[in-house]
Amino acid sequence: MVTQLTDSHPETVPAMATAMGVDSPEAVVFRGDGEPKTPESMVVQLADIVRRRGIEPDSYSQGGVVGELETAFADKLGKEAAVFMPSGTLANHLAIRLLCAGKPRAIVQEQSHLYHDSGDTTQRLSGINLIPLAPSRPYFTLDETRRAVSESVGGRVTAPVGALMIESPVRRQRGQIMPMDEMRRVTDYCAANGIPTHLDGARLFMMSAATGVSPADYASMFDTVYVSLYKYFGAPFGAILAGSADFCRDLFHHRRMFGGGLSGVALAAALALDGMDGFDRRFADAMRKARELFDELNRMPGLSATSYEHGSNIFRLTLPPGMDGERFTERLAEFGIFASADEDDCSSVHLTVNTTILRQTNERIASAFRAVINIG
Amino acid sequence: MVTQLTDSHPETVPAMATAMGVDSPEAVVFRGDGEPKTPESMVVQLADIVRRRGIEPDSYSQGGVVGELETAFADKLGKEAAVFMPSGTLANHLAIRLLCAGKPRAIVQEQSHLYHDSGDTTQRLSGINLIPLAPSRPYFTLDETRRAVSESVGGRVTAPVGALMIESPVRRQRGQIMPMDEMRRVTDYCAANGIPTHLDGARLFMMSAATGVSPADYASMFDTVYVSLYKYFGAPFGAILAGSADFCRDLFHHRRMFGGGLSGVALAAALALDGMDGFDRRFADAMRKARELFDELNRMPGLSATSYEHGSNIFRLTLPPGMDGERFTERLAEFGIFASADEDDCSSVHLTVNTTILRQTNERIASAFRAVINIG
Amino acid sequence: MVTQLTDSHPETVPAMATAMGVDSPEAVVFRGDGEPKTPESMVVQLADIVRRRGIEPDSYSQGGVVGELETAFADKLGKEAAVFMPSGTLANHLAIRLLCAGKPRAIVQEQSHLYHDSGDTTQRLSGINLIPLAPSRPYFTLDETRRAVSESVGGRVTAPVGALMIESPVRRQRGQIMPMDEMRRVTDYCAANGIPTHLDGARLFMMSAATGVSPADYASMFDTVYVSLYKYFGAPFGAILAGSADFCRDLFHHRRMFGGGLSGVALAAALALDGMDGFDRRFADAMRKARELFDELNRMPGLSATSYEHGSNIFRLTLPPGMDGERFTERLAEFGIFASADEDDCSSVHLTVNTTILRQTNERIASAFRAVINIG
Amino acid sequence: MVTQLTDSHPETVPAMATAMGVDSPEAVVFRGDGEPKTPESMVVQLADIVRRRGIEPDSYSQGGVVGELETAFADKLGKEAAVFMPSGTLANHLAIRLLCAGKPRAIVQEQSHLYHDSGDTTQRLSGINLIPLAPSRPYFTLDETRRAVSESVGGRVTAPVGALMIESPVRRQRGQIMPMDEMRRVTDYCAANGIPTHLDGARLFMMSAATGVSPADYASMFDTVYVSLYKYFGAPFGAILAGSADFCRDLFHHRRMFGGGLSGVALAAALALDGMDGFDRRFADAMRKARELFDELNRMPGLSATSYEHGSNIFRLTLPPGMDGERFTERLAEFGIFASADEDDCSSVHLTVNTTILRQTNERIASAFRAVINIG
Repeated sequence: MVTQLTDSHPETVPAMATAMGVDSPEAVVFRGDGEPKTPESMVVQLADIVRRRGIEPDSYSQGGVVGELETAFADKLGKEAAVFMPSGTLANHLAIRLLCAGKPRAIVQEQSHLYHDSGDTTQRLSGINLIPLAPSRPYFTLDETRRAVSESVGGRVTAPVGALMIESPVRRQRGQIMPMDEMRRVTDYCAANGIPTHLDGARLFMMSAATGVSPADYASMFDTVYVSLYKYFGAPFGAILAGSADFCRDLFHHRRMFGGGLSGVALAAALALDGMDGFDRRFADAMRKARELFDELNRMPGLSATSYEHGSNIFRLTLPPGMDGERFTERLAEFGIFASADEDDCSSVHLTVNTTILRQTNERIASAFRAVINIG
Repeated sequence: MVTQLTDSHPETVPAMATAMGVDSPEAVVFRGDGEPKTPESMVVQLADIVRRRGIEPDSYSQGGVVGELETAFADKLGKEAAVFMPSGTLANHLAIRLLCAGKPRAIVQEQSHLYHDSGDTTQRLSGINLIPLAPSRPYFTLDETRRAVSESVGGRVTAPVGALMIESPVRRQRGQIMPMDEMRRVTDYCAANGIPTHLDGARLFMMSAATGVSPADYASMFDTVYVSLYKYFGAPFGAILAGSADFCRDLFHHRRMFGGGLSGVALAAALALDGMDGFDRRFADAMRKARELFDELNRMPGLSATSYEHGSNIFRLTLPPGMDGERFTERLAEFGIFASADEDDCSSVHLTVNTTILRQTNERIASAFRAVINIG
Repeated sequence: MVTQLTDSHPETVPAMATAMGVDSPEAVVFRGDGEPKTPESMVVQLADIVRRRGIEPDSYSQGGVVGELETAFADKLGKEAAVFMPSGTLANHLAIRLLCAGKPRAIVQEQSHLYHDSGDTTQRLSGINLIPLAPSRPYFTLDETRRAVSESVGGRVTAPVGALMIESPVRRQRGQIMPMDEMRRVTDYCAANGIPTHLDGARLFMMSAATGVSPADYASMFDTVYVSLYKYFGAPFGAILAGSADFCRDLFHHRRMFGGGLSGVALAAALALDGMDGFDRRFADAMRKARELFDELNRMPGLSATSYEHGSNIFRLTLPPGMDGERFTERLAEFGIFASADEDDCSSVHLTVNTTILRQTNERIASAFRAVINIG
Repeated sequence: MVTQLTDSHPETVPAMATAMGVDSPEAVVFRGDGEPKTPESMVVQLADIVRRRGIEPDSYSQGGVVGELETAFADKLGKEAAVFMPSGTLANHLAIRLLCAGKPRAIVQEQSHLYHDSGDTTQRLSGINLIPLAPSRPYFTLDETRRAVSESVGGRVTAPVGALMIESPVRRQRGQIMPMDEMRRVTDYCAANGIPTHLDGARLFMMSAATGVSPADYASMFDTVYVSLYKYFGAPFGAILAGSADFCRDLFHHRRMFGGGLSGVALAAALALDGMDGFDRRFADAMRKARELFDELNRMPGLSATSYEHGSNIFRLTLPPGMDGERFTERLAEFGIFASADEDDCSSVHLTVNTTILRQTNERIASAFRAVINIG
């Protein structure tokens, strides 16, 4: 499943322990999708936005800066329209509900957020049965899709599949992605068989940075796509649901029916719009810098950084024998570099790459790792 | 999975081909759960019932002969009460709907009729998510149950299991049953954890005949139990749903809400009541006679009758090499003995035991089999 | 609302009290929609049907005599297709569910069976909000329809009307009907505005006998129409739902999902098919005979029979001063003529006309009434 | 329905037209429930809050400043617990859904926001039928409640009432309120009959200011109560749903299932918490000042300010003959005083009292009115 990045070689730059906290603007935080934010940091950023460009008010989540944000995302995703949603749970639910158009089944990954972590919302509120494919695996194949579609009309009472959703990257599977070619095979099959498709692309822009395939290229395979606004774009909450103009036209009625037509979301939208600006470039820089760093780490004795087969922004770092993950991350924190030990395996840690890696030079980060494994 | 019944030995009684049809009262029909019935045969039986004991009218599926039938089944199943249902689909649905009492999940077998052949009815009409365990197998274990229950409260949003259903025998698995000890382990666990349980015992009385465990003993492990009235009790349609007096008290309101409060079902109830009378004994006789017959068949060269591990009223008969199932059953039909060739395997047929086996002597049936394999 | 039928004149034929029960084949029963039936009488009729023409079996409510019945009703109603339903509750529910096609509202009469007597089934199981018009009145007008449609898209969140249903005659309003011209105005408006319409014509054939407008002429104004099979056609239960071939094509899947795909309904279908035969003529005869009888009654001192404005098969009979409804009907029963006293008004009784009026001559029936009011 | 406040008498302070806009901090805005806010004004207030007391972050709408806010509201409303909701639509829906506990009906005002302006959300997503009482009137009575409860169990299939909701003040009825004694009669009846009750108190604190009855006294009559956070407490969005500790314990699971578990709402909560501080006193001051002002206006020739019978913060101002509402409000705006002309009546305007009345002296406001009616 994972392949070694490079061989290791010696390294000599010294590291100095600091008293930097995780909220420090210089901290490198190898966890979480985006830069850590606090209410205070958001207020500072908002004051700056007001100064720089002002914030046009919205009315019940429509118009003003919310409209600007929707247009920006529709452009970025190559879709005709986009609508602000208060949460990804609602974005995914409404996509499935509307695409199904009365048909009772939708195909999803068993490991998807919608299947496991949304309280059976589509089943309970929309009476839609989610068919969970690929148990404990990151993605399903065209063959599994075909079988599920054919079974859905093979029972004594037909219960046809009305929609298919793909989550990629898959949070429950260390951010692993569904490979492009399988994604294309499955969505082509669905298109040929009149089954609309939805992409849970909460972390779509991170997948794009990892694979080099643009968000619009991914989105072009699907009828609708959801992107998170708070995981890495800096909003306190919110999501975007994009699709055709027809699909989006009356979406706000459904949003309001679910209680998601919030009266004013201009602050959240303004932060997301600001966070979008230059994100692609910054995250691509972060991934490039991370790969160079991991080459460097692979040259250190006992360390081995590996990536997942089909790409992810999460990497596995095997520790030298005798080194324990808990102790390793504690020591690393002293240098202002934060990571989490694996719960189920003390011989490795997983490093999630985000834009905080840009806050320090690779030289400085690498020397911290070196100091930790040398001192132990 | 299957074990050979006995060795074979020679046999000498001659067989004579007849022109008997499948509806003939002397036909032995090794398929279907009960005796074949036609509208005409039901009218004849009804006229006889009217003569013998009369039929008390019901009012919208309540009272009269329907009440008699409900009492008879409550007694037989050891439950406080029982309610007539127009179909097993509705009986199972209402059991799950009411036992769940607002909780959103129910555990079922992936191979169950409710999961595959009821048009996703509980998901669509009651917003209840069915968790399908034991894919492609007849039953699930306590361990699988435990895992599903624990996962149901482990997601970010809890979606607790409100009920568990067991279908046994399992129609999609050649009538194989869930073994008694596993059934007890699972239902004990559910009782200890406040999860009500339902038995889809459509063919419960056939399971009892196969295992010797009484219907009431099976039913005692469950909060509610459904039994079919038309598969082998001779009604044209209908089902019984039994449980506590509390559970059954307002059931007719729910039945009517689903459109199942039929205005008059006295004829169906009278036929079922008549069919219940002596059924246990007749079916037990049939199973005993079948076992003796299969011993006999096993003594014939090339034939091998085997039963399923945990019991069933369906048996597998391996044919002599070179004999084809299609041809075998065609020839057998000439002797007034009817069976179906397997769709996916021409070297064997499956024989479903029901009370039509009582219509001819084993000697005569065996000689027919002998004639067929000798002539080929 | 009601108009007097004719003036009264003297009458001389004597009446003799009999010991006839309500189930007697000579009883005239001025209540209920059809001829009283018992399980025994149905078995006798079935035996006769078997002798006369046989009964082709159905399979899970499809084919055989069920198919014959569906074809006969489709013809009679001038629709492309018709499907057997186990109950009117399900017939109405499925019509509304499918016509709405995902839209959340349906317009109905507040006094309709579906609104008051079906356990909120469309709201609970299909999430469809019924908008109740014309509170405590038999029917609504085009103006009320227009207002409800316009309000449905005027709230902050639109909740468009997906279907409109008319029940006529209205059971809760003494069988009063919606006048033809209002019915046409409302259904024309709906057709022009893309709102499909459904006729709850449980007693459609009785309305036709009262007004002279054929069932097919009524049905032609609606997309779908439901007719009861047990109220006056003699089946123990059942209903017909008719509409376009497209509408009916997959209806059996939905029927089965609700638990209404009964395994064998040939007996019920055979009785209904037999009951249809000649019903129009018999019921028209009954209505003609009833009008003549009521003319006769109006000539008796103190009696006054009146009909409802827009027609009904239920008539109001005002009693002579001092005569009490309870006592009146008791005395009448001694002559084999059965009616029910009004619960809320002791000075009148309501007479429901059905084909039992054909069992005695008007002379004999009138003389019974005369005897009762003379003796008191 | 409305009663005149006082007689009029002369007045002499001069008024000077200004160029003040509606967003000016000195504008008196006789419309809307609270002080006008813009994204910029909220950012300024947030920066001030950060300085004064900091903002503790929440995690998915739980803990931190959100917890502080919930505790403050529980205290204020005399309830054991309170939970943040993203919208009033969701707060009302969840209250009804959970209080109903599987029963299919809830009683509401026909004029309520939930019935008319929430897209039939409880019917569509929770299968709960809303029974609309008091058509076109502000509130229903105990008698109407009793009748609806009794009808709900009187149909052929019972559909019992599971909850009753009262909205007060009623937005669609010019903020008119349900009188305290009727409210008590209805809620007492419900308590005695096991029907839980919910108060849609979106504007509860304004009702309290108008009547002098404390929010906790109102809330004590109900099982649950919802209060808006954005209408007059200054949050950009949000609501509070308060009730027993039991009721609130798992509410966040349901909130998240509907897509309302927003990832970070600290900014909104901080603004609401800040807005609560001293609101009671400020709004009571505003109401007192308004009453004095309206006394003053009543002394001016041709002006007549009247209040609604049972209280409201909205008052009706009849204009002098010949004066038109549109022109009147235009002229008034030149003095920095903003009101809206009535759409359907040009001879009067409605003045909504909020805390912006505290921004200018009554003398100055009155002189503006005087100038406008003098000049015309």
